[in-house]
Amino acid sequence: MIKLAIDAMGGDFGPSVVVPACINSIRKNKNIHMTLIGDKNVIKKYLATDVLDKYSSRLEVDHTDEQILMSDSPSSALRMKKKSSMRLAINKVKDKEADACVSAGNTGALMALSRFVLKTIPGIDRAAIISSLPIVNGKCRALDLGANVDSCAEHLLQFAVMGATIAESVDGIDNPRVGLLNVGVEEIKGNDLVKQTSQLISESGLVNYIGYVEGDYFFLGGADVVVCNGFVGNVALKSGEGMARRVKEVIYSEFKRNIVTRIMGMIAYPVFTRIAKEIDPSKYNGATLLGINGIVIKSHGSANTFAFEVAISEAVSEVKHKVTDLITKRVSELL
Amino acid sequence: MIKLAIDAMGGDFGPSVVVPACINSIRKNKNIHMTLIGDKNVIKKYLATDVLDKYSSRLEVDHTDEQILMSDSPSSALRMKKKSSMRLAINKVKDKEADACVSAGNTGALMALSRFVLKTIPGIDRAAIISSLPIVNGKCRALDLGANVDSCAEHLLQFAVMGATIAESVDGIDNPRVGLLNVGVEEIKGNDLVKQTSQLISESGLVNYIGYVEGDYFFLGGADVVVCNGFVGNVALKSGEGMARRVKEVIYSEFKRNIVTRIMGMIAYPVFTRIAKEIDPSKYNGATLLGINGIVIKSHGSANTFAFEVAISEAVSEVKHKVTDLITKRVSELL
Repeated sequence: MIKLAIDAMGGDFGPSVVVPACINSIRKNKNIHMTLIGDKNVIKKYLATDVLDKYSSRLEVDHTDEQILMSDSPSSALRMKKKSSMRLAINKVKDKEADACVSAGNTGALMALSRFVLKTIPGIDRAAIISSLPIVNGKCRALDLGANVDSCAEHLLQFAVMGATIAESVDGIDNPRVGLLNVGVEEIKGNDLVKQTSQLISESGLVNYIGYVEGDYFFLGGADVVVCNGFVGNVALKSGEGMARRVKEVIYSEFKRNIVTRIMGMIAYPVFTRIAKEIDPSKYNGATLLGINGIVIKSHGSANTFAFEVAISEAVSEVKHKVTDLITKRVSELL
Repeated sequence: MIKLAIDAMGGDFGPSVVVPACINSIRKNKNIHMTLIGDKNVIKKYLATDVLDKYSSRLEVDHTDEQILMSDSPSSALRMKKKSSMRLAINKVKDKEADACVSAGNTGALMALSRFVLKTIPGIDRAAIISSLPIVNGKCRALDLGANVDSCAEHLLQFAVMGATIAESVDGIDNPRVGLLNVGVEEIKGNDLVKQTSQLISESGLVNYIGYVEGDYFFLGGADVVVCNGFVGNVALKSGEGMARRVKEVIYSEFKRNIVTRIMGMIAYPVFTRIAKEIDPSKYNGATLLGINGIVIKSHGSANTFAFEVAISEAVSEVKHKVTDLITKRVSELL
């Protein structure tokens, strides 16, 4: 049985999205047990008594009044809200009452609490945010997507090792190709940090390093793991998302142009449904706070029920593949 | 009469793209004079004698054997190829024989030669690459897109002032909104460089500063000018382009799935033609090496004839609006 602690109060929609997603996951997967943490009165609005009864052996609600808001700073979340739903979910991982926790709440607070409560894996100086990106015919993992705003070469090497471990175990990719994000693929390109990091990763021999990759690798593929500092990774991810939304708006407005184009759009509708599904970012929801001594999954704050389920699946996969143990073992080679 | 010096040998396709684009531009705009610089034997393959005769007063060919290759390093371009088509085009701007030059060649070499031959504008420490990005219902300008891999706060302030000047003059935007690229819009977000820069821009009072913007502003709008360091800007641009290509591939493959979807695609074809046109990056070809004491426009290396024409138009607009003079004047406030 895989035990998950769920911060039911996090995200833009709180329990109205989180609770139905949990129920769906419990229904689909007989091997998971969930503890929903948050305001039980609100949670129960979305949790019918018969559902709770039916799954009583695998579904629990832990009540707490406190919750972390999007506006809370990491430090105030840490000091002032010791009984928040997010904190209690992380505590469960620490106390081995859960194998992983999932939250759609405040990213900065989740990172700060996870680091404080669970600590980082020995040999890892900084945790990173890693997520799957939808590339043509598959996915790649990119990190760091914003946990840190500055990283040195050693941190980036640690990210490379962790990224390769998760791509190999969870994604089942044999000897995953690790690329370092740069402004060009040629050796002379880039700033000092990138050049130093490239040398360090290359000389470490710890990953299958393919050298520099450019921004388009984020969505076109060519590497299984893209390593970058959190500032660049965050901007690149949002830039790509911005472009996807722009293209969607263009398609929509062109088909709404007049009655003829509307009819054309209606005829082609089934294909558009498939296209929308294919490029739906929900499919890749669930970023991992990698390097933390425990599995902590961050769902996008605006995730819908389907997307939150995907984040839960990511947690389940990582527990199954014992990602924390694998990274701990692999990183020990760095020490 | 606006005089342009064109590096006819640059880009992936050289004169086969550049020459037809120049002929089209000459035809469409009676107020431009062009000197095509490069191997006259190759250029004349794409330049019919009757065209040359017809436009003889506005179209010249300057022969040179030398050209800069994509593989040439900036320093070897500078030292070894003093008669390259690119260098001679830049020399013409220096010698006031041309008001601007356009090249689709090696970006690093173009930047190095421009800086060496034309120098930067007094008060500008570093030139930056600025380009228009296609946002929903309009465009925004982003800089730096890769001229520099490291920038300090003072450089970024200079970029902000230059970007605002071009948005105001060439794009005709009154009091353009200038945003600073960051990992979040909240004040606590970002690294030290971003925080310092934000304070510097804000306190300078030289631009209409709207604070931090995120990566999605690159393609969704919200700012008329986005300022960032060249490393981040380059990655964000390529990430967005990668996403656009991915979406295009998904659309294409879904409509090719089977006979029914192919028919749907054929019916909706006219709309797709419009969509493709709307999101076509060629529409925004022509990046400016901003901060150089003269107008130097860089076309994308893979530009087609239409795209190269767009780059020529950008050069014409900047000459018309006396961008170099405006920036020189505005930057003097910084000194």
